[in-house]
Amino acid sequence: MKFTLGQIAAILHAKLEGNPETEISDLSKIQEGHAGSLSFLANPKYLPYIYTTQASAVIVQEDFEPQEALQTALLRVKDPYAAFTFLLQKVAELQRRPKSGIEKHAFIADSAQVAASAYVGAFSYIAEGAVIGEGAQIHPQVYIGEGAHIGAGSVIFPHSTIYHQTVVGANCIIHAGACIGSDGFGFAPQADGSFQKIPQLGRVVLEDEVEIGANSCIDRATLGDTLVKKGVKLDNLVQIAHNVEIGSNSVIAAQSGIAGSTTLEENCMLGGQVGVVGHLTLAKGSKIDAQSGVNKSIKEPGQAFRGSPIQLFRDQLRSEMVFRKLADMYQQMDRLEKRLEELESPSI
Amino acid sequence: MKFTLGQIAAILHAKLEGNPETEISDLSKIQEGHAGSLSFLANPKYLPYIYTTQASAVIVQEDFEPQEALQTALLRVKDPYAAFTFLLQKVAELQRRPKSGIEKHAFIADSAQVAASAYVGAFSYIAEGAVIGEGAQIHPQVYIGEGAHIGAGSVIFPHSTIYHQTVVGANCIIHAGACIGSDGFGFAPQADGSFQKIPQLGRVVLEDEVEIGANSCIDRATLGDTLVKKGVKLDNLVQIAHNVEIGSNSVIAAQSGIAGSTTLEENCMLGGQVGVVGHLTLAKGSKIDAQSGVNKSIKEPGQAFRGSPIQLFRDQLRSEMVFRKLADMYQQMDRLEKRLEELESPSI
Amino acid sequence: MKFTLGQIAAILHAKLEGNPETEISDLSKIQEGHAGSLSFLANPKYLPYIYTTQASAVIVQEDFEPQEALQTALLRVKDPYAAFTFLLQKVAELQRRPKSGIEKHAFIADSAQVAASAYVGAFSYIAEGAVIGEGAQIHPQVYIGEGAHIGAGSVIFPHSTIYHQTVVGANCIIHAGACIGSDGFGFAPQADGSFQKIPQLGRVVLEDEVEIGANSCIDRATLGDTLVKKGVKLDNLVQIAHNVEIGSNSVIAAQSGIAGSTTLEENCMLGGQVGVVGHLTLAKGSKIDAQSGVNKSIKEPGQAFRGSPIQLFRDQLRSEMVFRKLADMYQQMDRLEKRLEELESPSI
Repeated sequence: MKFTLGQIAAILHAKLEGNPETEISDLSKIQEGHAGSLSFLANPKYLPYIYTTQASAVIVQEDFEPQEALQTALLRVKDPYAAFTFLLQKVAELQRRPKSGIEKHAFIADSAQVAASAYVGAFSYIAEGAVIGEGAQIHPQVYIGEGAHIGAGSVIFPHSTIYHQTVVGANCIIHAGACIGSDGFGFAPQADGSFQKIPQLGRVVLEDEVEIGANSCIDRATLGDTLVKKGVKLDNLVQIAHNVEIGSNSVIAAQSGIAGSTTLEENCMLGGQVGVVGHLTLAKGSKIDAQSGVNKSIKEPGQAFRGSPIQLFRDQLRSEMVFRKLADMYQQMDRLEKRLEELESPSI
Repeated sequence: MKFTLGQIAAILHAKLEGNPETEISDLSKIQEGHAGSLSFLANPKYLPYIYTTQASAVIVQEDFEPQEALQTALLRVKDPYAAFTFLLQKVAELQRRPKSGIEKHAFIADSAQVAASAYVGAFSYIAEGAVIGEGAQIHPQVYIGEGAHIGAGSVIFPHSTIYHQTVVGANCIIHAGACIGSDGFGFAPQADGSFQKIPQLGRVVLEDEVEIGANSCIDRATLGDTLVKKGVKLDNLVQIAHNVEIGSNSVIAAQSGIAGSTTLEENCMLGGQVGVVGHLTLAKGSKIDAQSGVNKSIKEPGQAFRGSPIQLFRDQLRSEMVFRKLADMYQQMDRLEKRLEELESPSI
Repeated sequence: MKFTLGQIAAILHAKLEGNPETEISDLSKIQEGHAGSLSFLANPKYLPYIYTTQASAVIVQEDFEPQEALQTALLRVKDPYAAFTFLLQKVAELQRRPKSGIEKHAFIADSAQVAASAYVGAFSYIAEGAVIGEGAQIHPQVYIGEGAHIGAGSVIFPHSTIYHQTVVGANCIIHAGACIGSDGFGFAPQADGSFQKIPQLGRVVLEDEVEIGANSCIDRATLGDTLVKKGVKLDNLVQIAHNVEIGSNSVIAAQSGIAGSTTLEENCMLGGQVGVVGHLTLAKGSKIDAQSGVNKSIKEPGQAFRGSPIQLFRDQLRSEMVFRKLADMYQQMDRLEKRLEELESPSI
């Protein structure tokens, strides 16, 4: 990209202090600014950098008052972070060049349907009965199983495995190596100590605008559907077991796992490395801190939890604070007991 | 599938209450029953659904006594869950259509041997000296390294990597993206702070009827074998380090990890996100609760543990219960000390 | 391989006690020794095996004094473990047969550059503008995105995804299924509860001699670089978020995760299943025990931590020790209170 500051000011409806002819060819963090880059200042923590940054211009709050001399141009807006994110999106759009057509060396089964505007990369395998929607981008080396549906505009990165019958909605993003529709982990214990596999005959359904991180796994239901609702975002290496339901606009950070048949209502947020036991329900807007272990259903919406097993966030912090003093407390108790003994035994 | 209730009753040796001509085309959970579906009632928690289910028939205990009017037919058997699982397996068998032959675009090295009844999918790579047994199903986009052996009837899903020399027994299932035989994590610290790789020259051996979940990893041994014995079931995203040995019929839930040279004896069960330190032995039948950290060997068989680090299950629960009251306990101790001080100081 | 003991003694500058014509064809652990194998004794724990091992020879400390009769030859050296590791490396070198050339069925885009001495396996995809250095080994079924650079001598195992613009240094090893350069997990919350994706325009840069475990994930930076410095070793299933920086010669065990914008200085060591919160700095040489949760920056170098949240290693051990006695402590406090009450109430 290459724009003048004047053009960018117009796009952002920003008040420019600087030369409108200055050319901007890059976006950068303020501490990594360089000639030709545009940055932003939103977090006060980064304030000192504005006096030293090499960025050609910085987006700031409309009422920003510098305390020292500046070497950079300013673009004053109401919300610098939102303005910068908007520019990021514009740049991403310019960089995005959706492909169409079927690359040499792709395998398309006879009964599969690939929309004319979709792209299927080399070494991808589209099995019998699979359907690829308009504009979908199936990168190279992807597997789309029998009867799977990929919605319009969805992007599937390399080495993802979309098992048979899986449904992916519109405008989803599935990162590399994700497995959608692998068998649920169900086995019936036998008298001789061995385990018999319980066939997993259900599906996985992802609604629209779902994003799945790299190498994450979502198991198909035993019967019925494992369901990931609209707008859900999963980070990398997340595990979603069979028959789980994840409410719309829920966000789950990396390496968390949800055991079978649990339901998250909408707008839940899980930190990284969280575990949730099976057959629970988490009320909408539940917030679970990183590394927590959820072992009971949450009924009241919008509460924050922490710990393994979880307590209310504040209660857990209080317990943790005392945990750090436990050894002292143990000795204090011993001293108290000794003092008590002295009082109990008559001194003469 | 399409069967009449009469046919199904005969298969299950069930007592039918309803029209033997009713057609069944689907299995469902009782709460998701619909016309043409057959469901089951095993867990009393789901009892209310039997009076409202839309399922055409429900498998129930032979002595089930309805308390209200039923709209569904009944199939009475001794063990409804076992009967339903049996039907699931029958349906799965009907759906399973093992393929044979080598698909166009597969790569088979000159010295590799592929049994005539095996299937190798497109874009799969069978390296020099590899052996694929009778009836094995190598799905598309699988990698089978040099000299690896895949036993008869085993199924390998897309994007799995079976490194060189790995041995996979008969009737194993390896889900998508699993890595079997990657290098163990061994490095010798050098004087300058860097690390020198210790070559990993051993193998991974999976015995028969092992199932490995999606994106799980099993590292090859430094020397000798990393060994996964008969009937072991691993869930998704599990990590098994070099020189580990997992006893037969052990079951490990998602995102658990076993560090190097540890041995699990037979019939161990690990919940999700468990970690086990290296060079330990866990006695047969050990049960480890989710998110636990095992930092010592377990000698007595058949015991249950929990916590990080682990305690006996009951002891850990008792500690956790008090942990929740720690802040109160801390204040109580302070109050006790003040009362003690008052007693100690003469009132006059 | 096949060497005589005399040859091996010469290579190791070892003092041989045994027949120099004995042929050695294998390396083994001492407890798994067999005719023709060479083993070593470094850890005193394994001392008893030297009297029973079937190995044809064992490398021992130069001053080793057997207490019983030996059936095996001895090779006396200063550091048996180092000598054995040296032999492992020699064997690994002999086994390593780097390939060169482009295998049939590989996809090389028109503007990609592949060095003449590099190898690209079947079904690998080298996108536009990608550069593959001298001697690099791109195994089958690898994806190298647009403009990515793979340094000389690096080895990329099957099913790895190297996203666009990623830089991999020289002599790196990337195990199967690793994803380098997937999008950072960044979303801006919207008024309606949904999340808007923040485009991830940065890169991932791996310096030289980095090793990445199977199915590990490293996210690209939002802007700038996610940076993994020289000599870093990551185990399997590790998650590195966007804009993280990992100092040289740091080592991270399996299933650990580092959240966004955190910096590890050089020579840090993280155990398995560790979590580190975002925007922190860990001083050089920090050691974090398995399953710990790091929720604050570490300023003093070279210290060991443990727990979730972390304490200094020793402090955490002390707290854990009391945690195991918490239930007893709770009852003790109750008893103290009762005794105090008795003292407080005048006996007459």
